[in-house]
Amino acid sequence: MTNDYYKNLPKKRMGAGAIFLNEKDEILIVKPSYKDFWSMAGGVVVENESPKDACIREVKEEIGINLKDASLLCIDYCSNKEGNGDSLQFIFFGGVLTEKEIKEIKIDGKELVDYRFVKVEEALSLLSEKLKVRIPRCLEALKNNAVVYFENGK
Amino acid sequence: MTNDYYKNLPKKRMGAGAIFLNEKDEILIVKPSYKDFWSMAGGVVVENESPKDACIREVKEEIGINLKDASLLCIDYCSNKEGNGDSLQFIFFGGVLTEKEIKEIKIDGKELVDYRFVKVEEALSLLSEKLKVRIPRCLEALKNNAVVYFENGK
Repeated sequence: MTNDYYKNLPKKRMGAGAIFLNEKDEILIVKPSYKDFWSMAGGVVVENESPKDACIREVKEEIGINLKDASLLCIDYCSNKEGNGDSLQFIFFGGVLTEKEIKEIKIDGKELVDYRFVKVEEALSLLSEKLKVRIPRCLEALKNNAVVYFENGK
Repeated sequence: MTNDYYKNLPKKRMGAGAIFLNEKDEILIVKPSYKDFWSMAGGVVVENESPKDACIREVKEEIGINLKDASLLCIDYCSNKEGNGDSLQFIFFGGVLTEKEIKEIKIDGKELVDYRFVKVEEALSLLSEKLKVRIPRCLEALKNNAVVYFENGK
């Protein structure tokens, strides 16, 4: 197999994000300046970067938290519904943050303009349609100590 | 976000394969004509195809088995070690095949020249270096009813 063989294979974009809880079982949500909805810490998996490393990097960049590790909760395959190509979304569990750790959260005020810990129910009313479906499945996976693979939220 | 934004995002190639067992707990391995080592049924995930759908399609194409579903066992992120770009490998469990189902296995004799059910230990001596590491982890995941995410076999 030549390098050209591999270079020409079909490829998919992917994203990686993290779920954080506080000690009251509330979930961290963040408000990107460029989106109408709240979201979770995370972003695009770049070249030569694993989904987990992308999650750890994005969490550091977006909220200033140093994750040593993160455990996978779910993989959601998203079909090409909006003409943007299909993709894979990886959601990891960042952990339960202590009060001290929460005080160390720092957002840049440009890409992210706000963050909150809210009850899951409230989070669901603020998140994007995709995350509204994905997050409850992730929390269920977390409770069951499982990893869930699904497609288009189902 | 414009279509161009999504079009220009980094992307990774990915593969999907299936583990099959027989009723004696032996594992199915296949011999591609173009490889020195034995392998497992599977192949490249194409455009607008989910990893699971790729697994089901490749299994049908390569060994003639109609899978209705497949459950994810492992995701292995492979770094760009050989200059071929990084990739993700998805391994699913195809199931325990009955004697009747095994009789229906058909290979094309061109891409795949042979197939066998062998004890796991024997399989490991015949498979590629990557599969030698990946398969035992998949079988452990299967035993534990789990899904395992790892990177470069670790």
